[in-house]
Amino acid sequence: MIFSSDNWAGAHPAIAESLMAHAGGYASAYGTSELDRKVEKKFSEIFEREVAVFFVGTGTAANALALSSVNRAGGVVFCHREAHVNVDECGAPEFFSHGARLCPVDGIRGKMDASGLEAEIRRFPPEFIHGGRPMAVTLTQATESGTIYSPAEIDAIAAVAKSHKLPLHMDGARFANALVGLDVSPAEMTWKRGIDLLSFGGTKNGCWCAEALILFDPSKAHEMHFLRKRAAQLFSKSRFIAAQFEAYLSGDLWLNLARHANAMAARLADGISASAKSRLAWSPDANEVFVILKQDVASKLQQQGAVFYDWHVPDELADRLAQDEGLYRLVTSFATRSEDVDRFIETC
Amino acid sequence: MIFSSDNWAGAHPAIAESLMAHAGGYASAYGTSELDRKVEKKFSEIFEREVAVFFVGTGTAANALALSSVNRAGGVVFCHREAHVNVDECGAPEFFSHGARLCPVDGIRGKMDASGLEAEIRRFPPEFIHGGRPMAVTLTQATESGTIYSPAEIDAIAAVAKSHKLPLHMDGARFANALVGLDVSPAEMTWKRGIDLLSFGGTKNGCWCAEALILFDPSKAHEMHFLRKRAAQLFSKSRFIAAQFEAYLSGDLWLNLARHANAMAARLADGISASAKSRLAWSPDANEVFVILKQDVASKLQQQGAVFYDWHVPDELADRLAQDEGLYRLVTSFATRSEDVDRFIETC
Amino acid sequence: MIFSSDNWAGAHPAIAESLMAHAGGYASAYGTSELDRKVEKKFSEIFEREVAVFFVGTGTAANALALSSVNRAGGVVFCHREAHVNVDECGAPEFFSHGARLCPVDGIRGKMDASGLEAEIRRFPPEFIHGGRPMAVTLTQATESGTIYSPAEIDAIAAVAKSHKLPLHMDGARFANALVGLDVSPAEMTWKRGIDLLSFGGTKNGCWCAEALILFDPSKAHEMHFLRKRAAQLFSKSRFIAAQFEAYLSGDLWLNLARHANAMAARLADGISASAKSRLAWSPDANEVFVILKQDVASKLQQQGAVFYDWHVPDELADRLAQDEGLYRLVTSFATRSEDVDRFIETC
Amino acid sequence: MIFSSDNWAGAHPAIAESLMAHAGGYASAYGTSELDRKVEKKFSEIFEREVAVFFVGTGTAANALALSSVNRAGGVVFCHREAHVNVDECGAPEFFSHGARLCPVDGIRGKMDASGLEAEIRRFPPEFIHGGRPMAVTLTQATESGTIYSPAEIDAIAAVAKSHKLPLHMDGARFANALVGLDVSPAEMTWKRGIDLLSFGGTKNGCWCAEALILFDPSKAHEMHFLRKRAAQLFSKSRFIAAQFEAYLSGDLWLNLARHANAMAARLADGISASAKSRLAWSPDANEVFVILKQDVASKLQQQGAVFYDWHVPDELADRLAQDEGLYRLVTSFATRSEDVDRFIETC
Repeated sequence: MIFSSDNWAGAHPAIAESLMAHAGGYASAYGTSELDRKVEKKFSEIFEREVAVFFVGTGTAANALALSSVNRAGGVVFCHREAHVNVDECGAPEFFSHGARLCPVDGIRGKMDASGLEAEIRRFPPEFIHGGRPMAVTLTQATESGTIYSPAEIDAIAAVAKSHKLPLHMDGARFANALVGLDVSPAEMTWKRGIDLLSFGGTKNGCWCAEALILFDPSKAHEMHFLRKRAAQLFSKSRFIAAQFEAYLSGDLWLNLARHANAMAARLADGISASAKSRLAWSPDANEVFVILKQDVASKLQQQGAVFYDWHVPDELADRLAQDEGLYRLVTSFATRSEDVDRFIETC
Repeated sequence: MIFSSDNWAGAHPAIAESLMAHAGGYASAYGTSELDRKVEKKFSEIFEREVAVFFVGTGTAANALALSSVNRAGGVVFCHREAHVNVDECGAPEFFSHGARLCPVDGIRGKMDASGLEAEIRRFPPEFIHGGRPMAVTLTQATESGTIYSPAEIDAIAAVAKSHKLPLHMDGARFANALVGLDVSPAEMTWKRGIDLLSFGGTKNGCWCAEALILFDPSKAHEMHFLRKRAAQLFSKSRFIAAQFEAYLSGDLWLNLARHANAMAARLADGISASAKSRLAWSPDANEVFVILKQDVASKLQQQGAVFYDWHVPDELADRLAQDEGLYRLVTSFATRSEDVDRFIETC
Repeated sequence: MIFSSDNWAGAHPAIAESLMAHAGGYASAYGTSELDRKVEKKFSEIFEREVAVFFVGTGTAANALALSSVNRAGGVVFCHREAHVNVDECGAPEFFSHGARLCPVDGIRGKMDASGLEAEIRRFPPEFIHGGRPMAVTLTQATESGTIYSPAEIDAIAAVAKSHKLPLHMDGARFANALVGLDVSPAEMTWKRGIDLLSFGGTKNGCWCAEALILFDPSKAHEMHFLRKRAAQLFSKSRFIAAQFEAYLSGDLWLNLARHANAMAARLADGISASAKSRLAWSPDANEVFVILKQDVASKLQQQGAVFYDWHVPDELADRLAQDEGLYRLVTSFATRSEDVDRFIETC
Repeated sequence: MIFSSDNWAGAHPAIAESLMAHAGGYASAYGTSELDRKVEKKFSEIFEREVAVFFVGTGTAANALALSSVNRAGGVVFCHREAHVNVDECGAPEFFSHGARLCPVDGIRGKMDASGLEAEIRRFPPEFIHGGRPMAVTLTQATESGTIYSPAEIDAIAAVAKSHKLPLHMDGARFANALVGLDVSPAEMTWKRGIDLLSFGGTKNGCWCAEALILFDPSKAHEMHFLRKRAAQLFSKSRFIAAQFEAYLSGDLWLNLARHANAMAARLADGISASAKSRLAWSPDANEVFVILKQDVASKLQQQGAVFYDWHVPDELADRLAQDEGLYRLVTSFATRSEDVDRFIETC
């Protein structure tokens, strides 16, 4: 009953086998091998347009490089208050961008509110040099709250960003989970909505270490080669990231793994909804379930071997918790077994 | 006949199998798993003292983090002119350290000369704030020229560094090759010689992606946790780097792989020495052979499928090349086959 | 009727004359002259203890250097949401500190609330490397809202900072205005309250360009010499900053100038309080008056030659303004004439 | 007999008076006053084209901002080995540019050799991401060795820079001394020769603190406003820098002051040339004289009150000094009196 995080899972067998299959022989280094090129092309197919692809080692690296590539002196990046860049990257975006500021935007259930975004951007008049200047907007899909921006919601965020001429980045650490949750194409969830840069995550969904930064405008790729190398993110045996993506993107494996994770989350949610003692904080869209448990129930579950984290209670929820209740996060993954879900529900 | 670089090789089967063996199940993330801890302890055993170990994704990351951890405003790092940090990392040391300067030190065959180092350090009087101030010394073992600092040579460098109270870093991208070349223990080649920080490389010697930054003073570890995380080098599924090192460090695999690579280099060197047309630039100590070939010989080898790079001619060699000759670098690895060496020698 | 900012005023005659008096002759450069030393000693007298003094060119430089000197990777600085570092320095604190994050703390009338500060700091558990870590607290005295922290209020902020082992910085761009407002000694408003670093401003109170960064722990001075030089803030003819401070600090000139500015603000406030059309947003403690004017009154004043800025309405005030009213800031200075104040009041 | 540096002198009376004249009244802050605008226009007149002008506090700031404005990840700046940016700015160029590397170029008497520059640039193949990439060339006029690049020599440097598409910066800390030394117009010494950015120094030639960064392409000004502000170099009472330049640039004062300094240097040089005991290291072009003195002569001069620095012996001179001789630098300024020169020569 491991619901702590999707990055506690290991690697899917197909991905492990792809790595094994490419272990022998020689290949040119630093992202120039045939396999690197082949997988890059695969990304262009998936996105239905030519994209520039940069493999990196962590989602934090993808996010921080993306933001650093559009930064300027005094730059301000707008993100949701609970966004990974804002609360889980120990200043990497600020470091990579030489001091950009992250400006948190509020919004319930992990999603920036378009009008809240507009209001925050307006606090920085474009030609007022003292206060800094807007530089980018970044949204997370699926969000850290297990919710998904609908295409219309992305459109609304993009409209605000574009009206201020700001590039729009998507942190897609759980891209596949969002995609199958919405049942749209990768293109429809990204560049057709106005996304300019994408952190495409594979690690949380069955890879060992496979993240890609996608530039929908390949003319920006030249600078990124230098930024990535300078950030120590150009891997000599880059083909082993490529090998993971090769398997991941073949025959809809990535989508199937995400479907499984989301289905396990839905099963958890259904069970909790039916419980007399516990209840959902909100309904999950992807593979993270936020649940309100009595503390003794949580303790009992932990004694039974369940692993999950208690969670910061957002303002929007503060009134809804009783004194003896806590908010907890449960994350499912490609590796989650329905037996574990059912055991959890039994106690819950 | 792939002699372009040791990072063109793949992964050794034992390492691939270790990754496969750890693919299943769950493990806590971000370097906190049992396997991470176990491998960290193994490093302490190997170095015969408690060390702090930080897994990172690239050798450049290990080097740049090491140097950033000892930097101060106006800091200057002393390294050999041909050092990887100076010529192959696209400004990563400068970026990670917020602008430290690399001060190149000369010395033949890739090794800093202790007196040359002393002279360069003396150009920065300690309390003269205008000129910057010495901050660290870094040496590469084995060097980029395929040579190895003897213990006495490391002592001489360390004596200079210590007399100026400067921390001493070793870039050990080819640590194992140096170790077996000298036939000393890891402790004897590092902290017993005065090394404070070590970039311990596994990638070039049979891993896919396994680098470790070793701090011989574990009390410095606390800051490094933040530095590594901020640099986007803390891997969520860190155990897969650990899994590689587990196999690598078991039963002397790492030393045996390096012995093979060095033996292949020696075989190449012997063959070239016996050639009427070609000759060694200098005798190799580890797994890199620098050879002077007539350009038509080089072309013929390339037509036969040999892959290798032509190389920047160092000043010390400038007089020794004829007009129709070039300097070339041949790198062997754990994967090099003696047949390929012999085929190369036949033409050479 | 110039009430736009105290930095629109020129230089007080005594300061201009001191510059003239020191124009001739030679003096050793870069802060080493006798005059530099003499003025540094004067600061130690004023603060009743040995302090380290660093002259710099702007208040932003003093603030950013102070914060950079205590930064660490992933560091977070806590400041009031309206603090100059947060809204008026275009990312200088982030730049100087290599990416520190500013975490805004709320509090009415420009003052951080101690419990609000505590709550914000607690959001960063000390050993949780993902989220960054608290690094410093900075408060502004007098605040950007024209209010002054009482000694007890500083004590409360300092208690929070110290309980988290965080250094405490004071942005004293309007230090003298606060000092005479409280009628306490410089020591009582700073290190006796727990302040570790102080940006001591002279420019807004009658100097041309005279700012000093004061370290109450002189053992920290060594690093600051390098930080200041690297930041291009070490002036070759530093004695001309010293010359301004020499006059400024002689015979209570600085206090008298601040008393005048505060008295002019009080006169403005009294007049506005007596007005039937206009009213104070809150009562001023120092030399900034925030006033609620009907927009047609504001326009009329501007037509009569009054210069002042309209101001961002803080949340605490949002309900109190009628549709046809605006919030405006009036700043007085050493140069403000009572005639101008009275003319303003007549219309107001 | 103060020959230590031109920044030991004070301020010229005309400049002190201009400051006094502008001390009263009000002016809009942060570089927006009428006086700021007027002086900016004067610069455009002087350079015979529209230029963008940014007042800053130090020459180091002007240099570092100039280089930071053209930097890119992995960028390398080429400068003479003895250039101020390389040996006297404590890492400010690296800090401001987020880690650009300075690549020293050799050349006798402080001047980069165009072919040496070409050779250094060629060490960085443009598309080789590992080694970093050329970013800018900077030359100092007059040089740190008291010499002046002739127009033809600037043309040669510019031709190399332009052939590699690199912007060309001039560090003009002693711009006026070079100008009158060459007897050309400001335009002829700068943009007509291919200079893109200029650090225009006034401090060493009679101002208190007046430096300007000049952009010959005003379309680049927008970004510089943010860079300067973020670097804490935007002065609130900017008009006092403007006031200095107003006097400095009026009626050829700046040129006359430089002519005087150069004439004093020539007088020193003539006297030393005629000495039996001492000799010039090389003939001065501007206001710095490098002289070879017997150590006992140097000591005697110092006992008589002469102040000057001993100097690092460049390689080109190493053979020419006897054991009992040293190299010394004598700097003259607008304030140097001929009596002091003559007294010096008497002993020398």
